[in-house]
Amino acid sequence: MSLTVVGSIAFDSVRTPFGERERMLGGSAVHFALAASFFCDVHVVGPVGDDFSEEHTELLHSRGIDTSDIERVQGGSTFFWQGHYEHDLNVAHTDDTQLGVFADFAPKLSDDSRSASTLFLGNIQPDLQQEVRSQCAAAGIAALDSMNLWIETARDSLVEAISKVDCVLLNDAEIRMLTEEPNLAKAAKELMGYGPGVVVAKRGEYGAALFDSEGFFALPGMPLESVKDPTGAGDSFAGGFLGYLDGTDGDASPEDLRKAMAYGTVLASFNVEEFGTERVSKLERDEIEERLGELRSMTYLRE
Amino acid sequence: MSLTVVGSIAFDSVRTPFGERERMLGGSAVHFALAASFFCDVHVVGPVGDDFSEEHTELLHSRGIDTSDIERVQGGSTFFWQGHYEHDLNVAHTDDTQLGVFADFAPKLSDDSRSASTLFLGNIQPDLQQEVRSQCAAAGIAALDSMNLWIETARDSLVEAISKVDCVLLNDAEIRMLTEEPNLAKAAKELMGYGPGVVVAKRGEYGAALFDSEGFFALPGMPLESVKDPTGAGDSFAGGFLGYLDGTDGDASPEDLRKAMAYGTVLASFNVEEFGTERVSKLERDEIEERLGELRSMTYLRE
Repeated sequence: MSLTVVGSIAFDSVRTPFGERERMLGGSAVHFALAASFFCDVHVVGPVGDDFSEEHTELLHSRGIDTSDIERVQGGSTFFWQGHYEHDLNVAHTDDTQLGVFADFAPKLSDDSRSASTLFLGNIQPDLQQEVRSQCAAAGIAALDSMNLWIETARDSLVEAISKVDCVLLNDAEIRMLTEEPNLAKAAKELMGYGPGVVVAKRGEYGAALFDSEGFFALPGMPLESVKDPTGAGDSFAGGFLGYLDGTDGDASPEDLRKAMAYGTVLASFNVEEFGTERVSKLERDEIEERLGELRSMTYLRE
Repeated sequence: MSLTVVGSIAFDSVRTPFGERERMLGGSAVHFALAASFFCDVHVVGPVGDDFSEEHTELLHSRGIDTSDIERVQGGSTFFWQGHYEHDLNVAHTDDTQLGVFADFAPKLSDDSRSASTLFLGNIQPDLQQEVRSQCAAAGIAALDSMNLWIETARDSLVEAISKVDCVLLNDAEIRMLTEEPNLAKAAKELMGYGPGVVVAKRGEYGAALFDSEGFFALPGMPLESVKDPTGAGDSFAGGFLGYLDGTDGDASPEDLRKAMAYGTVLASFNVEEFGTERVSKLERDEIEERLGELRSMTYLRE
C-alpha cells in the first residue's frame, strides 16, 4: 500500500499575530505528505527550483517520504507564497505569489508513483489532475482538492476531473460555489452526482463534514488555545484522512471513513499549533493517538 | 420543576428564497418557550400590545405554556420585526424594527414565574436581565443570551449580568466580540472567569460548542436539505437545551449538558424547516427522539 500526492512544493513567508517566518518549506504536497506519512508510504510529485536544498529533502526523508519524483528544474525558482493573517486567524491575505517552476508544471510519474494504491490530486490545474488520474490506474482511492481559481477559470475540466475520482475534499464555500447551491447538504449530493461516492466539506475551525452513501458525519475542529499559523491545515487534514484510508484494507468502509475524518482533524490540529511544518515534522505517533482519544471524548453522546 | 423565560414576543414579517410570511408570531421568548415546552412547564414573561390576539395565546396554550405573565399594554403595539434572507440563508437583513411596547418593558413576575427552577434571560437590556435574575432566587440554573447591541452599548451591565448566571448562550462571534479574544477556546475561558460554569457557543449551521469544567464538547448542525426560515433557531436551541436540563434532576452534570446540547440542536433543526413557529408548534415528542437518534449516529466515532 502506498500513496502518491501531486501538488505544490513551495516556500512560504508567513506573518501572523504570533510571529513570522521567511521562506519556510510549504505547499499542498508537502503538508499533505508529512501528515500522510504517519500512516503509509508516500511519494511526492511536484516541481522545485535551484533554491530547493538538501535540508528540505532531508525534512521529507526524515518522515520516510519518497522524494524521487520531486522534479528539479534547472535555472528555475520554487513556487513562492507570501501572506499574513489578521488577529482573527480566519482572515488571510496574500501579499505575493510567484509561481516560478510551478507555472509550467507537467507531472512526471515514476512507476512507483503510478502504481500507488491511493492518489491525492492536490490543488493544481484540473487538466493536469485528469492527466495524472489516468496515469494512476492502480489507485483504488483517488481524491482531489481544488480552489476558487479553477472553479472560475476551468469549471468544465474540474467537473470532468471530479467525475474520475472517488472522493472530493473542498472547503464548504468552494462546494457551494462549484454547485451554485447554497444548501450544503444539497450541494454535496449534487457533487456526488458528478461521480465521487464521498464528499468531504472542510470547514476551517468548525471542523469537517462527510457525505457518503451512508449519509452524514461531522467532527468539530479541536478547540486549541494556541494556534500560530493556519497555513496548510486543509492539506494536513487531507493527508491524515487519505493516509489513514491507505493504511486500512482499502475498501473505505463507512467506519474507515469516519476514523479517517478523525485522523484528518487531528493532523490539521497539530499543523496549526506552530508555523509551517514545524509541529508535524516533529510529531510522534503516540501524540496522534492521544489526541484522537480526546477528540472521541469531545464528541461522544451517550445513549 | 418549571422554567421561566423573559424576552421578546414579536410579530415577524419574513421573506426568504422559499417564501414569505406577514406578521407571524415570533420573538425570542416565543421560540424558546415552544422548544422548551416538550420537556417541562414553561412560564413566558414579556409585553404585547392590543394587536396580540386570542389565536396567539392559543398557540402557546396548545403546548401547555403558561401565558399569565404576558403583559398586555393598552394602546400599545407588539414588537415588530421585518427582515429577509439571501439565497445563502446565513445572510440576514433587517428591513424594519418597531419596538412598540418592548421599548418600555419592565418585567413583572408572578409568584409562579419567580419560583421557577430554571430561568432563561432572553436577549433584553442587561439591567433588566439583572433585575429579573435577582427576583428569581429559586432558580438552580439561570442562563442568558445577549447580542452585539448590548455588548456595544451596555457592556459593563452585561458582564455584571453574566456574573450572576450559571450559563451563557451566545453566538461565537458575540463571544469573541465581548471578550475581544479571537480564539474561541480562550474567549470561552475568559467568559467563564466572569462567573458562569457553562458557556455555549452557537455556530449557526455549524452547530454548537460547549465549554464547561469538564472541557469541550461540540455537535454539528443537522444537515437539512430543506431550510425555509432560520429565524428563531438560536432561541429554539436554547429552549431545547434549558428545557431538557430543567426536566432532569437539576444538577446539570456533564452528561446532562451533552444531552441538552443534542436536544437544542434537534429543536433548532425543526425550527428552521418551516417559517416562524409553523414546524415546532406541530412537532411531536417522538419526532424529537427520532432525530436525536439520527444526530447521535451522525457523530458517533467508534473506539
